Amino acid sequence: MIPAVSIVGKSGSGKTTLIEKLIHELRQRGYRVATIKHNRHGFDIDHEGKDSWRHKKAGAQMTVIASPIQVAIIEDTERDYEISELIENYIHDVDIILIEGFKGNAYPKIEVFRSEVGHELLYIPHNNYVAIASDQPFNIGIPSFDINNVTGIADLIENSILNTT
Amino acid sequence: MIPAVSIVGKSGSGKTTLIEKLIHELRQRGYRVATIKHNRHGFDIDHEGKDSWRHKKAGAQMTVIASPIQVAIIEDTERDYEISELIENYIHDVDIILIEGFKGNAYPKIEVFRSEVGHELLYIPHNNYVAIASDQPFNIGIPSFDINNVTGIADLIENSILNTT
Repeated sequence: MIPAVSIVGKSGSGKTTLIEKLIHELRQRGYRVATIKHNRHGFDIDHEGKDSWRHKKAGAQMTVIASPIQVAIIEDTERDYEISELIENYIHDVDIILIEGFKGNAYPKIEVFRSEVGHELLYIPHNNYVAIASDQPFNIGIPSFDINNVTGIADLIENSILNTT
Repeated sequence: MIPAVSIVGKSGSGKTTLIEKLIHELRQRGYRVATIKHNRHGFDIDHEGKDSWRHKKAGAQMTVIASPIQVAIIEDTERDYEISELIENYIHDVDIILIEGFKGNAYPKIEVFRSEVGHELLYIPHNNYVAIASDQPFNIGIPSFDINNVTGIADLIENSILNTT
């Protein structure tokens, strides 16, 4: 089981920005990081007119694009996979997974909250929330970090998610 | 082993166009098709500024984007994989694989040739070339199809690649 943590929060709260900073920080600490992003309304990933785009558009169920340094795969699925299935099917050779955009999941969660974006936390007790990252302090029984305290949040991930065995 | 055929030919000969037509035709015949495209000089697949693009750019070794109908993966590799490795690692649940852009491979090959693009075939005897698709006929001991004869080429794929057991 690869350790995973979900970064949740309302739209515009700064989830992607925090994830970017955490990727940098965790890589600097020597960890290999994978990310998972869920788009409920589908996604548009390739560039119109490229060969791979034309393959997929023509009806290929799956298109693999390979280069000396990267591989990309675009494939049709018959349903919306659970995070656990995505991890099992696609993720390998990393130390930690940062998940963005699945709210109702069982993984440890860090909520990003900015007061200008929302008035209430998504946080629900006993739902595996391990921390809040916010522009204001919260006193709700789980660690509350300043949203820019990437070192502190990475320490928490390292101590409570990565090194728990 | 999933059957695979490589569509080869000089740049501009019409490989992608033939692959598009073959995908349509093979799907109509009830086959699920995967494609593999190799880009020696790397590829640029995601759109700048998208969350998944930001994850990968920030240093994620691997980014998975999921939706209810599709999954995409972009991952760093430590080297240029062989086709057989790409197939083994990434391709599943399809009936046939169409490969574009790997010339020196051991898979059955169909060469696309247009006289305005080149003067000589890539074709080498005893190198698993199974057909030529061209705007001119060739008499070299393997089937030669008109480049627009997609039905004929798909028949050949069906008979000599798909149903050989």
